Amino acid sequence: MPYRAPLEDFRRILTDVVGYEQVSGTDLYAEAGMETVEAVLTEAGKMCEEVLAPLNRNGDLDPARLENGRMRTPKGFAEGYKAIAEGGWVAISAAPESGGMGLPMAVTTCVNDMMGSACLALQLNPLMTQGQIEALEHHASDELKALYLPKLVTGEWQGTMNLTEPQAGSDVGALSTKAEPLEDGTYAITGQKIYITWGDNDFTENVCHLVLARLPDAVPGTKGISLFLVPRNIPDDQGNPGVANDLKVVSLEHKLGLHGSPTCVMQYDGAKGWLVGKEGDGMRAMFTMMNNARLGVGVQGVAIAEAATQAALAYAQERRQGKTPEGTIIGHADVRRMLATMRADTFAARAIALSQAVAIDMGRATGDPEWQARAALLTPITKAFGTDTGIAVADMGVQVHGGMGYIEETGAAQFLRDVRVTAIYEGTNGIQAMDLVGRKMMDGGEAAYRLLDEIEGFAETARGPMPDLATKVWEAAESLREATEALVKTDVADRFAGAVPYLHGFARVLGGYFHLRAAMADPEGSAARLARFYIERLLPAHSGLLAQARAGSEAVMAITAEDLVA
Amino acid sequence: MPYRAPLEDFRRILTDVVGYEQVSGTDLYAEAGMETVEAVLTEAGKMCEEVLAPLNRNGDLDPARLENGRMRTPKGFAEGYKAIAEGGWVAISAAPESGGMGLPMAVTTCVNDMMGSACLALQLNPLMTQGQIEALEHHASDELKALYLPKLVTGEWQGTMNLTEPQAGSDVGALSTKAEPLEDGTYAITGQKIYITWGDNDFTENVCHLVLARLPDAVPGTKGISLFLVPRNIPDDQGNPGVANDLKVVSLEHKLGLHGSPTCVMQYDGAKGWLVGKEGDGMRAMFTMMNNARLGVGVQGVAIAEAATQAALAYAQERRQGKTPEGTIIGHADVRRMLATMRADTFAARAIALSQAVAIDMGRATGDPEWQARAALLTPITKAFGTDTGIAVADMGVQVHGGMGYIEETGAAQFLRDVRVTAIYEGTNGIQAMDLVGRKMMDGGEAAYRLLDEIEGFAETARGPMPDLATKVWEAAESLREATEALVKTDVADRFAGAVPYLHGFARVLGGYFHLRAAMADPEGSAARLARFYIERLLPAHSGLLAQARAGSEAVMAITAEDLVA
Repeated sequence: MPYRAPLEDFRRILTDVVGYEQVSGTDLYAEAGMETVEAVLTEAGKMCEEVLAPLNRNGDLDPARLENGRMRTPKGFAEGYKAIAEGGWVAISAAPESGGMGLPMAVTTCVNDMMGSACLALQLNPLMTQGQIEALEHHASDELKALYLPKLVTGEWQGTMNLTEPQAGSDVGALSTKAEPLEDGTYAITGQKIYITWGDNDFTENVCHLVLARLPDAVPGTKGISLFLVPRNIPDDQGNPGVANDLKVVSLEHKLGLHGSPTCVMQYDGAKGWLVGKEGDGMRAMFTMMNNARLGVGVQGVAIAEAATQAALAYAQERRQGKTPEGTIIGHADVRRMLATMRADTFAARAIALSQAVAIDMGRATGDPEWQARAALLTPITKAFGTDTGIAVADMGVQVHGGMGYIEETGAAQFLRDVRVTAIYEGTNGIQAMDLVGRKMMDGGEAAYRLLDEIEGFAETARGPMPDLATKVWEAAESLREATEALVKTDVADRFAGAVPYLHGFARVLGGYFHLRAAMADPEGSAARLARFYIERLLPAHSGLLAQARAGSEAVMAITAEDLVA
Repeated sequence: MPYRAPLEDFRRILTDVVGYEQVSGTDLYAEAGMETVEAVLTEAGKMCEEVLAPLNRNGDLDPARLENGRMRTPKGFAEGYKAIAEGGWVAISAAPESGGMGLPMAVTTCVNDMMGSACLALQLNPLMTQGQIEALEHHASDELKALYLPKLVTGEWQGTMNLTEPQAGSDVGALSTKAEPLEDGTYAITGQKIYITWGDNDFTENVCHLVLARLPDAVPGTKGISLFLVPRNIPDDQGNPGVANDLKVVSLEHKLGLHGSPTCVMQYDGAKGWLVGKEGDGMRAMFTMMNNARLGVGVQGVAIAEAATQAALAYAQERRQGKTPEGTIIGHADVRRMLATMRADTFAARAIALSQAVAIDMGRATGDPEWQARAALLTPITKAFGTDTGIAVADMGVQVHGGMGYIEETGAAQFLRDVRVTAIYEGTNGIQAMDLVGRKMMDGGEAAYRLLDEIEGFAETARGPMPDLATKVWEAAESLREATEALVKTDVADRFAGAVPYLHGFARVLGGYFHLRAAMADPEGSAARLARFYIERLLPAHSGLLAQARAGSEAVMAITAEDLVA
């Protein structure tokens, strides 16, 4: 399916909506001015359009498979990966001393967005490596960094994350993989890990696993967990991949989608591993990279929303059915409504993601705790709203295609199948929402109120030129403030029962704010028309969501298992 | 996956919620008292649990296929079909003179619900035959009826519906299949039809196609369409299937789901057909059966919602993760919220469907135009809300399963894949919504207002015992009344732009009403707890939906194709 990089949307959001100029105004990112950013994105977009997008359908039809214990990836994926690696796109935010470009996360986010639209199954591969690079940059010893980072940044080696075990999913603390200290200072890792994305491939020289495991004397729960780097092939004295380590891919999962991306059961049989960070500090290392990893997955949702919207628009402009002025189904009001919803929500989800990326960049560049708190607050919203939007938009894309949407050849259904897992992995969206109303409100709502002050302040200045839209955004923000004030006063059980609707209500309000900002910069153009559509038609959903958010836990927890049987 | 027939839910809805006693109070259905109905449903439920449910997964893994032009259905489907046919379950509402049981549609609806939960791909087969029987009962000549109905009612022969052509989907009037009159009074049918569900099988003696086609001198559009009965094998003098007709299955579609049900491209090469009804009256015949067919598809959504809820509940009661009083994930508030949403919405969609079935039965038994108008009003709501609920609940079922939900072996994803088409076929849900605000409001909103009077009247009587819930339902009904009054005053373009949100807002209010009725009959039990959950937490969504419904078309139609490009 043809894909067109949304360069204008990136430019608009970065400049008109999320204040990217603050990022390029810092010393750290002084070289990443908008001109440079646009050049980088144009180049990455070209690769996504020309090299990656043509691989997407085949990745679905010709799944990754194990043949005699060897991974076989879909035809074309090796070449696609090579284009990503040679273009330097694996990790453009990595530090220059590791071979990265040192670009802001805001730029990485746009590149991941494009790669995800073009071929999500393959994009997952560098996304895993990005996470590993970040973990190593923050926690690994200088020796490990010197050996591994250059190989990972260039894409010569690939990274994975090994957390989940059959009995330890959302409850990571229940994991039982063992790490036995060896005399040479390394560790012998033994255990089984499941749901390991890209646990192996047939196009990089080495695969490096970051594995959470327990020392023999470790305390139970998350505090007893340490992090280890476990390479598939143990580097020799020259740093080249040497003898095979004692680990293997046991089997692949048969999944709803993302067939091109192997999801592995990994077996470690005393594999040699190197400690990353301190013993017992594994979860802290994971938390360090969580803002970025969750941003990355949220953007996968945005990416599929973009791709599905493009495909549905193309179909709607070509399919003749019924009488419309345009001659095609885009003239039908309900089709137009669906397409406008898809585009307006994709914009909202993308703007939320990029606002989080800017907050990460500003937090890093300035060390300002308010920016860091902003990034932390937005993390679960980006992840859950981005992925839920990806699913909802892909679902609407199927509907726009009518009967053709149910036929696999069209590709609309693949988007839905592929994106569905994004609401589950990297912390289910329920976990995200609990993070938002739990950990992220341990400040008494401070970070949320600062953001609401910003929204209401902007809405007040917008009242002159755009009174109707600005008033609606202001009122929605005020409702969210009241809901937040109510939530922080309740106990955590009440918050959890309304967490997911609260998160979605929050995202709706943020979407209204970002649409309003875009409209103010383009008051007679596309942005203003989409903003009006969003604010008049989609924003009102916040009231039902916030009502549910504030309803407490009693009516939920009163329902027994027997009540759920019909 | 084990399935348990929801007999208690049927009993509760029929007796406490939709007033089934009115149906058994008529002369026509005097023999179908609740005791009989419960015996019938118990028997059908047993077959669904024991015979059909075990076939469902295999229908997905071992899809229907064409082998050398012969249809091969999944292993076990032939035996499953035999159980349906021999049990008399193909068409229990068919008239006794045709071999049917003459039971009300309310009972057929429950049976279809159970068969759909157990194995949707196979349930589609008798659903098609039910539609054909109804069309023949109303429109065929006595000779055709005498020959075909007994074979169809017993399931010896199977029926199909042939409407769609590549250029004629939602716009049926654009079809071009030709019917040439022959000297013997029959017709030669020539053309290609697509998306033909169960276009053939390997377990019935004959397959009877109802085909929409045009006579040589027919006027363009829907008025030039006639309906023909075209058997795969032409019955001989004894009424047994004889020589093969000139038609064939050309190919099968590769679909997102429902793999067990063959979706065929049919080719008619001068096939012999018999006129059903008058020339040019084909669309009228189609409209006759539309209320029932759309009810049937809406119930497919309910059926999958039921099956997905049962599967998610079972998983949530078994999966240990995190610390909860129950020891399993059902103790987590967000999981409980999802399960309660699934159950409460499944109940709402089922009650709406059964209220439509009761209206159909009452319309038929009494001839009262108010009942007929009620049935017509509810038709698009049953279809669209039932199927959208099926999709939303199946999607939530995947989420409850966490990572396991994305693995095909679990079965949760199959429910989502299978049910997705129900929002598309038998008139897309957009078409349903346009029907609701268009054709169904040509009475100036009369039928809707009568229903709202009933809801508000009931809510007033419920105010004593259940003041909070009753007030919320009353207010929601009043908001719907205001939205309806506003819509009937606007032109149809404005209505169409808000049609889908209006339909969902309507369904939300109906759901509140039916939950309230159930709660009033069971004020300390399950029904009351679910009603409270629904009315406090899910009903408030109506405000955002109705805001969108009333927003008119201007902001939608102002958005250009260029605005939709990012």
